[in-house]
Amino acid sequence: MSAPVIALDATHDPATQSWVESANAADTDFPIQNLPFGRFRHNRLEPWQIGVAIGDRVLDLHATGLIDHNDMARLMAAPVAARRALRLAIWEGLRAGSSLQKVWSDALLRQTEVELGLPCEVGDYTDFYTGIHHATTVGKLFRPDNPLLPNYKWVPIGYHGRASSIGASGQQFHRPRGQTLKPSATVPDFGPTARLDYELEIAAWVGMDNALGAPVSIADAEDHLFGLTLLNDWSARDVQAWEYQPLGPFLAKNFASTVSPWLVTMEALAPFRAAFTRSADDPQPMAYLDSANNRSAGALDVQLEVWLQTPTMREAGSAGERLSQSNMRDAYWTLAQLVAHHTVNGCNLRGGDVLGTGTLSGPAPEQGGSLLELTQGGKVALTLANGETRTFLQDGDSIILRGSCERAGVRRIGFGECRGTVLAARSL
Amino acid sequence: MSAPVIALDATHDPATQSWVESANAADTDFPIQNLPFGRFRHNRLEPWQIGVAIGDRVLDLHATGLIDHNDMARLMAAPVAARRALRLAIWEGLRAGSSLQKVWSDALLRQTEVELGLPCEVGDYTDFYTGIHHATTVGKLFRPDNPLLPNYKWVPIGYHGRASSIGASGQQFHRPRGQTLKPSATVPDFGPTARLDYELEIAAWVGMDNALGAPVSIADAEDHLFGLTLLNDWSARDVQAWEYQPLGPFLAKNFASTVSPWLVTMEALAPFRAAFTRSADDPQPMAYLDSANNRSAGALDVQLEVWLQTPTMREAGSAGERLSQSNMRDAYWTLAQLVAHHTVNGCNLRGGDVLGTGTLSGPAPEQGGSLLELTQGGKVALTLANGETRTFLQDGDSIILRGSCERAGVRRIGFGECRGTVLAARSL
Repeated sequence: MSAPVIALDATHDPATQSWVESANAADTDFPIQNLPFGRFRHNRLEPWQIGVAIGDRVLDLHATGLIDHNDMARLMAAPVAARRALRLAIWEGLRAGSSLQKVWSDALLRQTEVELGLPCEVGDYTDFYTGIHHATTVGKLFRPDNPLLPNYKWVPIGYHGRASSIGASGQQFHRPRGQTLKPSATVPDFGPTARLDYELEIAAWVGMDNALGAPVSIADAEDHLFGLTLLNDWSARDVQAWEYQPLGPFLAKNFASTVSPWLVTMEALAPFRAAFTRSADDPQPMAYLDSANNRSAGALDVQLEVWLQTPTMREAGSAGERLSQSNMRDAYWTLAQLVAHHTVNGCNLRGGDVLGTGTLSGPAPEQGGSLLELTQGGKVALTLANGETRTFLQDGDSIILRGSCERAGVRRIGFGECRGTVLAARSL
Repeated sequence: MSAPVIALDATHDPATQSWVESANAADTDFPIQNLPFGRFRHNRLEPWQIGVAIGDRVLDLHATGLIDHNDMARLMAAPVAARRALRLAIWEGLRAGSSLQKVWSDALLRQTEVELGLPCEVGDYTDFYTGIHHATTVGKLFRPDNPLLPNYKWVPIGYHGRASSIGASGQQFHRPRGQTLKPSATVPDFGPTARLDYELEIAAWVGMDNALGAPVSIADAEDHLFGLTLLNDWSARDVQAWEYQPLGPFLAKNFASTVSPWLVTMEALAPFRAAFTRSADDPQPMAYLDSANNRSAGALDVQLEVWLQTPTMREAGSAGERLSQSNMRDAYWTLAQLVAHHTVNGCNLRGGDVLGTGTLSGPAPEQGGSLLELTQGGKVALTLANGETRTFLQDGDSIILRGSCERAGVRRIGFGECRGTVLAARSL
């Protein structure tokens, strides 16, 4: 068993029930042990307000009196002790038998009655490449004998992404146009992408800043993370193949990225820590990427799923079909290692920055976190239960990501859903 | 002669003098024909205020009554007609004989008496690779027979950079640490970079947004740009070589980037437009990257210089030694093409976003915009006039970028300076 990075407290007690009935359902993502933060509004004219998910409701946090503002960045920037105190106060008010039930009842809204937005304004967005099974499978498509580059097992590979086009679950976007090079052609074409894909990722959201020039040690790294959401890093594979040399992906990725609306906090994830291990055949992490805590509990046991809902399924009333399952524990680097690496050169992280894990695929072929993997680069179409086939995404397709944490003797928590839908390319 | 994209008006008349005496000096960067915008403050406790450079002074724009706020993003987001009207009003107040001289005199500060900051908060930062001479020289270091990749002459290659570590002229930063792989080694080292370099670039700053999903045509592209500054994209070449495959530069670049404080507006640059041409041997730009206006006047004639001031020079009272000269006109793509390309997939640009040109080197070897080029990858040291030598930057070195526009019959304008200084690596 691994030692938890964050000590468990009353808020993790699986026996605690809430006076919000829906939070006690066995299958809810949001029992009282979760308490994720997000932003909601009733309409587009209203500013975003801070809420906490509890069962199928949102607790209006400002209305409880626990905060005197609606600035999520400010809430996220609080020191760890203050964050834990806030979590405990919310738990105290929502638990069955709380004396606050009567007054807090007025601060509850149905999640379906409000719009859920980005959990906070995004600062800089960095995407890593920690899914070694993804990197290996994709690498094989290009270099069958040498899929992983020599730096992969030393450097937590990452690159900068586009913050402006990150949207909350429910995001719809038009199929992007771009330059592509057909096989054996020497002159590129221009038009809508024919190889539109998703990528199953987790996003870690920065809370506390570090100053420019001041690296964050791996021991302190997780203090700078507030919580996690799901992340779909939509990708146009044909655009990517033509544009990405020598500086990396650009227009193939920056037309849209979708995140789930609820920030599942590092505190809520405390019971789901897992050991971080390195095969004896692999290089051991350099000193700045290594700590006893990281070895014993640096990883997170988060089960992940990708669902596809085609227009045909939607018309038939079907919620969709599951395409794959994987687990965040299979990532080659931990979140603490990502923070330590990102800042080791003095780079400053700021509250609201997003660190994506990269595509989190499992070791088996059917655990690929993208269609590129599941269809072997578009060569083998998936046949769906209703007889439809897919190599890449078609107009009208929705992709739904889901995540949850389960462990014996602990209350299950979930991430809610991260849904995005492909619209036809805009007419010119 | 090329037709200007923006019509010239009274504000470009070279005969106009200002009642601010220093603005009439032949060698000032800031005559009344320039009127660049920036942000200043008297001390760290004061919020940033909007100023206009005139000679060696700053005009406090709010104090003139021409604006009722100090929000640069708001000023930059104004439609083109409003921007031109503001420029004309400032020109009217500052020209010799203006009836406003008496009241505006109280709104003037010495530039040396205030701190000049970033011209506005940076949103997303994209760096392009438009310097074909840079791309060719650097490509030759890796691929002598095939320096330019096949996509270079079709795609305005770009990637996302780090916004949080962009600082204003005067920025000082510690030599970054990172992983590097010594020649013929198989196991990487960790330590301070030994190949610290600068890159001479121009930054274009976005004013007006475009909505996600709504590409900006090349005809409208420059309406979305407010103005230009100098940009030094500091680079750790040894870190870059080891980390950049397959997703591009990351820690090699994101420890610091420095910009000059004054936004030289697209209006001020109107007299310095130049024709954009393509060799008949090269592919002609695709339709979305082509327009009659772009061909006749899409390029900009901006002369650029890099200066080095070593600690020895500083002690000797020397302002430094010029390392190279080049011109923005030699870029392979125009700013309008960068905006059209960046948004063609629906990506949204927002006010405060920065688009870097990439390193702007000239065609001759001595016109390299980085030490990597000037020293042939660190193999041939530069010998300076005082006998010092450099392959890459040493602790205490300052790099100063300068830019100016000159043309017969037109008043010369300049960009001010973009200065940054390397400090020793922090002790661990």
